[in-house]
Amino acid sequence: MFEAECPLMMTHLGWGKQIYKFSADRAHIENLAGNTMRWNERMYIRDLVGKTGETHTICGWIQFTRKSGKIRFLGIRDGSSIIQGVMVKGETEEAAFELFKDLRQECSVRITGVVQESKQSQYKIELLIKSVEILGKSDQYPITPKEHGIDYLLSNRHLWLRSKKQVALFQIRSRIIQAIRDFLFKHHFIQMDSPILTRSVGEDPAGLFGVDYFDMGTAYLAQTGQLYLEASIAAHANVFCFGPTFRAEKSKTRRHLTEFWMMEAEMAFFDNDDNMDFQEDLIRFVVEEVLNHCEWYLQQLERDPDVLRKILSPFKRYSYSEAIDFLKAKGSNIEWGEDLGAGEETLLTEDSTVPAFVYDYPKQVKAFYMKENEEDPRTVKCSDLLAPEGFGEIIGGSQREDSHDKLLARIKEEQLPVENYEWYLDLRKFGTVIHSGFGLGVERLVGWICGVPHVRETIPFPRLMERLTP
Amino acid sequence: MFEAECPLMMTHLGWGKQIYKFSADRAHIENLAGNTMRWNERMYIRDLVGKTGETHTICGWIQFTRKSGKIRFLGIRDGSSIIQGVMVKGETEEAAFELFKDLRQECSVRITGVVQESKQSQYKIELLIKSVEILGKSDQYPITPKEHGIDYLLSNRHLWLRSKKQVALFQIRSRIIQAIRDFLFKHHFIQMDSPILTRSVGEDPAGLFGVDYFDMGTAYLAQTGQLYLEASIAAHANVFCFGPTFRAEKSKTRRHLTEFWMMEAEMAFFDNDDNMDFQEDLIRFVVEEVLNHCEWYLQQLERDPDVLRKILSPFKRYSYSEAIDFLKAKGSNIEWGEDLGAGEETLLTEDSTVPAFVYDYPKQVKAFYMKENEEDPRTVKCSDLLAPEGFGEIIGGSQREDSHDKLLARIKEEQLPVENYEWYLDLRKFGTVIHSGFGLGVERLVGWICGVPHVRETIPFPRLMERLTP
Repeated sequence: MFEAECPLMMTHLGWGKQIYKFSADRAHIENLAGNTMRWNERMYIRDLVGKTGETHTICGWIQFTRKSGKIRFLGIRDGSSIIQGVMVKGETEEAAFELFKDLRQECSVRITGVVQESKQSQYKIELLIKSVEILGKSDQYPITPKEHGIDYLLSNRHLWLRSKKQVALFQIRSRIIQAIRDFLFKHHFIQMDSPILTRSVGEDPAGLFGVDYFDMGTAYLAQTGQLYLEASIAAHANVFCFGPTFRAEKSKTRRHLTEFWMMEAEMAFFDNDDNMDFQEDLIRFVVEEVLNHCEWYLQQLERDPDVLRKILSPFKRYSYSEAIDFLKAKGSNIEWGEDLGAGEETLLTEDSTVPAFVYDYPKQVKAFYMKENEEDPRTVKCSDLLAPEGFGEIIGGSQREDSHDKLLARIKEEQLPVENYEWYLDLRKFGTVIHSGFGLGVERLVGWICGVPHVRETIPFPRLMERLTP
Repeated sequence: MFEAECPLMMTHLGWGKQIYKFSADRAHIENLAGNTMRWNERMYIRDLVGKTGETHTICGWIQFTRKSGKIRFLGIRDGSSIIQGVMVKGETEEAAFELFKDLRQECSVRITGVVQESKQSQYKIELLIKSVEILGKSDQYPITPKEHGIDYLLSNRHLWLRSKKQVALFQIRSRIIQAIRDFLFKHHFIQMDSPILTRSVGEDPAGLFGVDYFDMGTAYLAQTGQLYLEASIAAHANVFCFGPTFRAEKSKTRRHLTEFWMMEAEMAFFDNDDNMDFQEDLIRFVVEEVLNHCEWYLQQLERDPDVLRKILSPFKRYSYSEAIDFLKAKGSNIEWGEDLGAGEETLLTEDSTVPAFVYDYPKQVKAFYMKENEEDPRTVKCSDLLAPEGFGEIIGGSQREDSHDKLLARIKEEQLPVENYEWYLDLRKFGTVIHSGFGLGVERLVGWICGVPHVRETIPFPRLMERLTP
């Protein structure tokens, strides 16, 4: 091996063609043969399954170290999993034993060892360590196994993300997002990204972030892409967008972020019953995907997968009026016509093991674009999907008003600027169709599936009223 | 059938449980049986393949009508495809013939007919029409088959999206996005959404949109999520984000939008050669997916699939210095040390059938976070990927500076506010590793693959210096 012969030269070693200066005592890492290893041929912990008895090298970060008599233990995290490394006299190189004291929490390492079976760990394997190389030091890592306050953790979010539960959360979040997309793609939905910078206002004209837009005055950060999706259904029938959404609300609840991710779907020729059927199928698919692929990570979060398995049964469906009766029977003093708050949503589903739809809300508490209910014109054809166990709303959806004249009347009634909605009204002039859609809040869905009550943990870098960093 | 027996009542018919009032002469549409048809059991044009001789009903929009002697032709678009409907005396109901004159461009219809083979069309089928029902009228649709100016079309973007080429563009765009994600997901990348509202500045401190953020002063719309991805690699090794990106540049070129979509990836233990290998594999996968699934839509855009097939060969790789020599030989008066502009990029690739990387640019034209090249410290380890045929840059990437002290020195050299980068510097304190990443501009990639030179067409609702609507 060229590297082994010329240990004091600058040479190619390790991943790809990167150049390391390395000293004589590291020349033994010749089995890396890294300079000819393409990016997709590298070994991660997950790839070591079934390789018992083989010697392999991985790179990662030290999660923990532990001594027990003459044996040394390391937890090594490489992004695919965490594996326990074991140092044993006679098996492990003497130099590695000596390096043990320098293996601080979160230093980066390259480790070579023999794959062994193990009862613990995600993949039921561990490494009998042969050699260790420190790549990057770590002194006084700020997040230790002791308890830290939430403000401290949020201020160190860039490091907190490495912690066991945070790793689990974002493995599951990523899977949830891909599952949502896979479901849509399987059913031929077309992604039509809606603009963030916009003039038109979908709902809640208050609570908008404003942006100076060149010489054109103020643009607003969109709260919804729905209106744009409605324009897109005539081209593609079933469409979605998936992007960040902004609310400048002065709210400090466990369910509010100023910036969060939302998937919105819009479907031609769907009424609101179809809409609910579709949402139910989507949520069930997502939960199945998480159960199939993320059970280990659910365990890390101490989330019982059996609780999630229950939601594979049919979801409950209450009309708003039924919900009001139910709430009154439970002691709430809500009156017909009032919106459901977080408290009422919790009351409705705290004893439920499946999600529940509440449909046909009173017109006055919902947005102008929702279709009036012919059977009861006090109400509109809409539905909110509430997660079980009191987690609250995860989806809001509705059938849209497809009559030009009724929509125009509603815009005027709400005193919205008609000129901003001319193009939206056009959609009812040129081949209007029955259609419905909804918005799904990713962080709330992740929160419920993972059993994490506060959404500030379910997005990588949360933005709150008083938090813009890191 | 309940519907056929009670034609004058309000009853359930059509998609899902929606309610239509329908008149006696429409009672024949009994084969719809829509009220028991779940959303995922419905028939789209794509589902009619292999059903020759069967009678089916589809809903959609009239794209064109045409008379030829006693025969009438309709083009019906349903979001899955366009199918030709044929009306023939004796076969088609008399009422449908009478309705023909009212079938204006873009009215919405429900059509029942017998599936027949056809030479034309995406799926080689047509419909022998039995009956037609108009669902939503369309009078004086603003976009006719005649030529319109670009400003007019952009002002009617909500309708323009229905046009044949626009439909093709967004079918391909959606496929490209899913292909990118599928590739990443196949290789175990984790999605880590980066914040849009941010204090830290990745590059180009000018050209930022500002937002009033509660009592905290100005937040900025992020131009990159890279710094946040770098924080995430220690948790997940290989990560990506995929969201809108904002540039308040006063540019009016064919390659600029103020809001565009970018996929950014970041990989631990990748040097810049790995980075280029990875990008090449990614782009090749995406183009293969488009060739496998979107050949019909490429044809609609008059884009020759064989041109794209050529890029399945290895990409070219020039060092910046080689590129300068090449440009000078072609007559450019660019000097070593200057950035490549759009003109130079075009010159480099206008005769090329494969994309080309230009790597190792001079430090002074690139961002502070790029890793200095040990072999030539005037340059940094970075690369731009230029699309062939002169389309210009589609990816910008680099290996990141992994030394704390060198990074700090660069931040100071560029006179950036160190306090905003404290957390970013932390990443070099606690287990720093060699790492690289890149950003891929979706609209430019779509533009090149589709052969559409101006990015304003490759995003559903473009935002330009002088355009915020619709």
